[in-house]
Amino acid sequence: MIDPRVASGLRDIPPSVMIPRERMLATFRQTFASFGYVPIETPHIERMEVLTGKGAGSDEVLRQIFEVINKGGEAGKLALRFDLTVPLARFVAKHINELGTPFKRYAIGSVFRGERPAKGRFREFAQCDFDTVGTDSVVADAETAQVIYAALSSAGVPPFTITLNNRKILDGLLDALGVADKTGPVLRSLDKLAKAGREKVLAELQRGEEGSTEGVLTADQAQQVLDFVEQGRGRAEVLSRVEERLGSHPRAAEGIANLRQILDLLDAAGLPETSLQLDLGLARGLDYYTGVVFETTVNGWERFGSISSGGRYDNLASLFIDRRLPGVGASIGLDRLLALLEESGSLRGTSTTVPILVVNFPGVAPSIPVKLAARLRRAGVGAEVFPESIQVGKQMGYGSTRGHKFAVIVGPDEAEKEVFNLRDLATRQEQKAIAIAALESTVKQALGVGA
Amino acid sequence: MIDPRVASGLRDIPPSVMIPRERMLATFRQTFASFGYVPIETPHIERMEVLTGKGAGSDEVLRQIFEVINKGGEAGKLALRFDLTVPLARFVAKHINELGTPFKRYAIGSVFRGERPAKGRFREFAQCDFDTVGTDSVVADAETAQVIYAALSSAGVPPFTITLNNRKILDGLLDALGVADKTGPVLRSLDKLAKAGREKVLAELQRGEEGSTEGVLTADQAQQVLDFVEQGRGRAEVLSRVEERLGSHPRAAEGIANLRQILDLLDAAGLPETSLQLDLGLARGLDYYTGVVFETTVNGWERFGSISSGGRYDNLASLFIDRRLPGVGASIGLDRLLALLEESGSLRGTSTTVPILVVNFPGVAPSIPVKLAARLRRAGVGAEVFPESIQVGKQMGYGSTRGHKFAVIVGPDEAEKEVFNLRDLATRQEQKAIAIAALESTVKQALGVGA
Repeated sequence: MIDPRVASGLRDIPPSVMIPRERMLATFRQTFASFGYVPIETPHIERMEVLTGKGAGSDEVLRQIFEVINKGGEAGKLALRFDLTVPLARFVAKHINELGTPFKRYAIGSVFRGERPAKGRFREFAQCDFDTVGTDSVVADAETAQVIYAALSSAGVPPFTITLNNRKILDGLLDALGVADKTGPVLRSLDKLAKAGREKVLAELQRGEEGSTEGVLTADQAQQVLDFVEQGRGRAEVLSRVEERLGSHPRAAEGIANLRQILDLLDAAGLPETSLQLDLGLARGLDYYTGVVFETTVNGWERFGSISSGGRYDNLASLFIDRRLPGVGASIGLDRLLALLEESGSLRGTSTTVPILVVNFPGVAPSIPVKLAARLRRAGVGAEVFPESIQVGKQMGYGSTRGHKFAVIVGPDEAEKEVFNLRDLATRQEQKAIAIAALESTVKQALGVGA
Repeated sequence: MIDPRVASGLRDIPPSVMIPRERMLATFRQTFASFGYVPIETPHIERMEVLTGKGAGSDEVLRQIFEVINKGGEAGKLALRFDLTVPLARFVAKHINELGTPFKRYAIGSVFRGERPAKGRFREFAQCDFDTVGTDSVVADAETAQVIYAALSSAGVPPFTITLNNRKILDGLLDALGVADKTGPVLRSLDKLAKAGREKVLAELQRGEEGSTEGVLTADQAQQVLDFVEQGRGRAEVLSRVEERLGSHPRAAEGIANLRQILDLLDAAGLPETSLQLDLGLARGLDYYTGVVFETTVNGWERFGSISSGGRYDNLASLFIDRRLPGVGASIGLDRLLALLEESGSLRGTSTTVPILVVNFPGVAPSIPVKLAARLRRAGVGAEVFPESIQVGKQMGYGSTRGHKFAVIVGPDEAEKEVFNLRDLATRQEQKAIAIAALESTVKQALGVGA
């Protein structure tokens, strides 16, 4: 016998998790599509060169790469993708002439990273990305936040907050302080503010990141940076203070104007003001963001981190094509979101996709339950027939364990009289001897769906 | 610059193919769910031992396996799955105690085979499988054909035929001819009948398959086998002839009874008789089928081969668990089906997911188109705003190239008067100066959807 375990760091996803997951993905696809984003798919396997090109992935991600070798093939040539952004860049570089710009795409799929296995962290996980490529327009910036808002709202996520910032403001601040060359390490340190707290970040800003040998900022500069980014999150308040401090710095002024326009457009689109905030400390460490950046947290569940993040980048595909392709996009962290919803009790636990179990009564021709279930499905009600005519109690046990709501029961007596019984599998109450002709209407009424 | 090509035998799927593909997958998921099949997901990466266990895959499939190596990991330990059946067997062996039986699951995902690249054949392709595990019931056999019928009908596939047979009948015939030990090669030869024709199969049945050193059947036996399997496909006709010839052979009689019951149940479920046929020559070479087998072809497009196939197996997970788990299931060949629909002209060519383009008119505040598009989406109509306020003709070109139906246009004059123009992007006709208040109702009427 072979041990049926999965490889280290991987997992099977059981029906009880897959059912809400599929429902959520359907909602996301529908939302992306309603804004005109089109789906694409790229292979799970990419050429190694594409994945390891300069700047494609961080050193950490490249250390975690899964190599792929075809039987008889050469080593070092192929690997599994570690995100959906590098494949997007390659796709766009290859196809942009046929596609034209702006190109708005979404992609949903598995990515692979050989991280050290840990609770809730897997070596294969799903990403849901959407991007608008080939435009610098602020309309696309605002739309990114609109899509995050629409996707999460439609999926029934509890109240959440989208946090915005613009990297140009931080760039302007560091430039004004005369440390424009320190942007990278400063942004990475600022990203730790929520988790590590002011004191630790203050120390790191001066000492440099772990392993670095030179300091980054003076004590005074570090203080100024932290004072600046920690000045509250109300939009009017933040914007006016930034304008006061950095309004005359051209790059910072661009960043402020961009945020103002985004907020105006989001008002026009009907996003509630309470679902948006500004945070000058939001940096999104990734080097390639150059304008607006986004993060999204569920109110009261901030410790789960961001469930949807993104931002504007200046040049997506410079590794592959000699044409500037700016863009903006975001990613929804499907698995983190599901984990949060499960822990917050917002997931309805169910292991079935149908509300109705049609009992296969011993001594009754199976064509009878098969016919009734087919009628219910044609009326738009999911229904399954228990395949074996075993003891009726066991069949109902199957239904009540999995979360079926009602059982339709036709025993020999009922078959003869052309009636059925409808049993509520939760309360165990039973309506008896209903005419078969009234099957669809009775079941729909019991389920509370339109007849 | 890095060449943005995909690796040999792999492909990017562009929006024009992905849009109908996603629509089709949504229909399949909905159909599987309406019968009570639940979704599961297993990793793309499995332990090598699981994939190469005796009988897991054919020698050919095993030669085509893609090995996976984690940085610093050992070679020969991991590989990409080549189908969804072996992972199902492993999953069931691992989880069957929590899941209980019958276990009805569907799974949709990529599988990987390092085949020689050829037109329309790729090294990564999607499979859509559904199976009922843990029951011998004929109700589950019939349901498999029901699901094929419902999924393909709902997806708008042109008229098709589901062909059924039962392996026990062929087993009985070969046993009656005294060549029960030749079942494997005989079934594999019979599978070639439609493509190679009677004479070639007749020769192969006697000579043995290519590379084999001993003959299989005598000329008379080969003749009898072909006469038997080629006796028409009408159900009454086929069943009565089989009964005449093999009715007294116990295994063949079981096969006949099974087919009769399946046909009765499919009648009860409302499947049209014209969509079903029997074919005693249908063998489905795979060794593990032991009862009913299915194939499905689109009428007039038989040369594309089967778009949905499957059958009953006696023991799914014997590699992994010491418990008999019989089952029945089928797989829909998504990519083959899409290729057929494209070639038969049944796919509506479109590269957009929304019917409405809202023009971003130069000189008009972008908050106006953003607001109108948001209103349309809230009314259930997909709408996208062109992100840049470039020349209006270019914006409309974006829409008409991609297949948007209408453009909503608000220029400076319209903005002032609170009206909009609605332009049909195909006919170029324009309704002018409609009150903004009537936006949703006008657009819905133009699209012919309920207001």
